[in-house]
Amino acid sequence: MSILVVGTVAFDSIQTPFGKAEHCLGGSATYFSLAASFFTEVDLIAVIGEDFGDEDVAIFRGRNINLDGLKRVDGAKTFFWRGEYGYDLNVAQTRETQLNVFADFHPQLNEKQRKTDVLFLANIHPELQMDVLHQCERPRLVALDTMNLWIDTKHAELERAFSEVDLVVINEAEVRQFTREPNLVKATRQILALGPKTLVVKRGEYGVLLVSKNAIFAAPAYPLENVFDPTGAGDTFAGGFLGYLASRREVTDLELRRATIFGSVLASFTVEKFSLDRLREITLADVQERYHDFRSLTHFEDFEA
Amino acid sequence: MSILVVGTVAFDSIQTPFGKAEHCLGGSATYFSLAASFFTEVDLIAVIGEDFGDEDVAIFRGRNINLDGLKRVDGAKTFFWRGEYGYDLNVAQTRETQLNVFADFHPQLNEKQRKTDVLFLANIHPELQMDVLHQCERPRLVALDTMNLWIDTKHAELERAFSEVDLVVINEAEVRQFTREPNLVKATRQILALGPKTLVVKRGEYGVLLVSKNAIFAAPAYPLENVFDPTGAGDTFAGGFLGYLASRREVTDLELRRATIFGSVLASFTVEKFSLDRLREITLADVQERYHDFRSLTHFEDFEA
Repeated sequence: MSILVVGTVAFDSIQTPFGKAEHCLGGSATYFSLAASFFTEVDLIAVIGEDFGDEDVAIFRGRNINLDGLKRVDGAKTFFWRGEYGYDLNVAQTRETQLNVFADFHPQLNEKQRKTDVLFLANIHPELQMDVLHQCERPRLVALDTMNLWIDTKHAELERAFSEVDLVVINEAEVRQFTREPNLVKATRQILALGPKTLVVKRGEYGVLLVSKNAIFAAPAYPLENVFDPTGAGDTFAGGFLGYLASRREVTDLELRRATIFGSVLASFTVEKFSLDRLREITLADVQERYHDFRSLTHFEDFEA
Repeated sequence: MSILVVGTVAFDSIQTPFGKAEHCLGGSATYFSLAASFFTEVDLIAVIGEDFGDEDVAIFRGRNINLDGLKRVDGAKTFFWRGEYGYDLNVAQTRETQLNVFADFHPQLNEKQRKTDVLFLANIHPELQMDVLHQCERPRLVALDTMNLWIDTKHAELERAFSEVDLVVINEAEVRQFTREPNLVKATRQILALGPKTLVVKRGEYGVLLVSKNAIFAAPAYPLENVFDPTGAGDTFAGGFLGYLASRREVTDLELRRATIFGSVLASFTVEKFSLDRLREITLADVQERYHDFRSLTHFEDFEA
C-alpha cells in the first residue's frame, strides 16, 4: 500500500514565546512524509531550489520515502515561510511568504505515482490539487487540506475540490469561515453535503473532531507540559492519520478512529521541539507507547492507568 | 449519601444570538441541585427574596432536594444577573449583577447539614465558602468552584480555600489567570501543589480536563446542533459530577472519569434550551442514553456505534 503526497518542502523562520529558529526545515509535505512513513511507503511530490542541499534532503533518507517526485530547480530558491506565535499557540501570524520555486510548480506524475493507493493533497491552490488528482488513476482514498486564503479567494474552486475527495482535513475556524455557520456540527454537515464522506476538524490544543454522516468521534490533544513550536502539527497529524489508514485493508469507522489517534500522537511529538527536530528522532516504539497513553487519557469504561 | 450545596438561587436575564429570556430562573445552586438530584439527595443552602414566589420554588419540588436550607427574606429581592453571549458561547459578558439578599447571606447549617457527606461550595466569596466548610463536621469530599473576580480581588483567600478542599472545579482561562502560567498542564500542577487532589478544568465547548497527581482524563463536550444558552452549564456539570460521586462508595480514578461524563451529559442538556427549561424536563433514562453516546463519541478501542 502506498501513499502519495503533494505539497511544500520549505524553509521556515519561526518565533514562539519559547524561542526562535531561523531558516529551518519545514513544509507541509515534509512533516506529512516523515509522519506517514512510520506506517507505509510515501511518494513525495514537491519542488526545491538549489539552496536545499543534500544535507537537507538527508531528512528523508533511511525512511520509507520515495524521492523520485522531489525536483530540484537550479538557479531558484526554495519556498520560504516566516511565522510567529504568541502564547495562544493555536494561531500563527504569517510575517512573510516567498513562493520562489513553488510559483511555477506543475508536477507531472510518473506511471507508478499515478497508480497510488492513497493521495494526500496538502494545503496548496485547489486547482493544483485537482490537477494532481486528475492525473491519478483511481486512488481508493483521497484527502485534502486547505487554508483561509483559498476559502477567501477560491471559494468556488474549493467547493468543487471538496466534491471530488473522500476526506477533508480542515481547521475548526475554517469550517465556520467556509460555511458562515457558527454551530460547528451544522457547519460540518454542510460540508459533508458537498460530497466528502468524512471531515477531520483540527482544533489545535483541543484535539480533533472526526465527523461522518453517521458518526462523530472526538479526540483530545495529548496534554503536554512543553509545547515549543506548533508549526507542522496539522500536516504531521494528516501524515499519521493517512499513513495509518494506507496501511490498513479497509477504511472502517474503527480504523478512522485509530487513525485519528495515531495522527494525534505524531502531532504531539512534532510540537515538543522546533521544526522537525522531534519528529526525526522518535521511533515506532515511542509512537506505540503514546498511542497506549491515549487510551487512558480518553476511555472511561475500560482502560489501564 | 447526601450532598450539600451552598450558592445562589437567582433570576437571570439572558441574551444570546438565538434569543433572549427575561427574569428567568437561574443561580449556581439551582442548576447544581437539579443536576445532582438525579443521583442523590441534595441539601440546598441559599437565600431568596420575597419576589421568588411559590411557583418559582416549585422547580425544586418532586425531586430529591431538601429545602430546609432555603431561606426567604421578606422585603428584599432575589440575586439578579444579566448577561449576554456572542457567537462565541464560551464567553459570557456580565451586564448587571444585583447581589440583593445575597449581600448579607451568612448561612447557619443545622445539625443534619453539618454532617453532610459531600459538600459543594459554588462560586461565591472564598471566605463565605470557608465559613460553610468550617461548620461541617468532616465531609468525605469537598469541592469548590470560583471565578475571575475572586482570582483578581481575593487571591490569598482563594489560595487558602484551595488548600482546604479535595477538588477544584475551574474554567481553563481561570487556571491560567490564577497561576500566570500559559501552559495548562504546568498550571494545573501548580494548583494541585496547593493541596487539592483533583482539578476539573472546564473548557466550554471543548469539554473537560480532569487532572490528578497521577492521571489525566479528557472528555469532549457533547457535539450539539443547537446550543441556545450556555448559562448554568458549569454548575450543571458540577451537579452531575458530584451528584454521581456522592452516590458511589469510593472516589476512584474510574469513578471520577464516569462522574466527568455524567457531568458533561447533564451540562449538554442544560444548554439546549434557555434557563433551566431543558434540565427540568429530562428523565434519568435520557441521561443514561446520552452517557452511552459518550462512549461511542470517545472510545477508539471498544465501543458500539
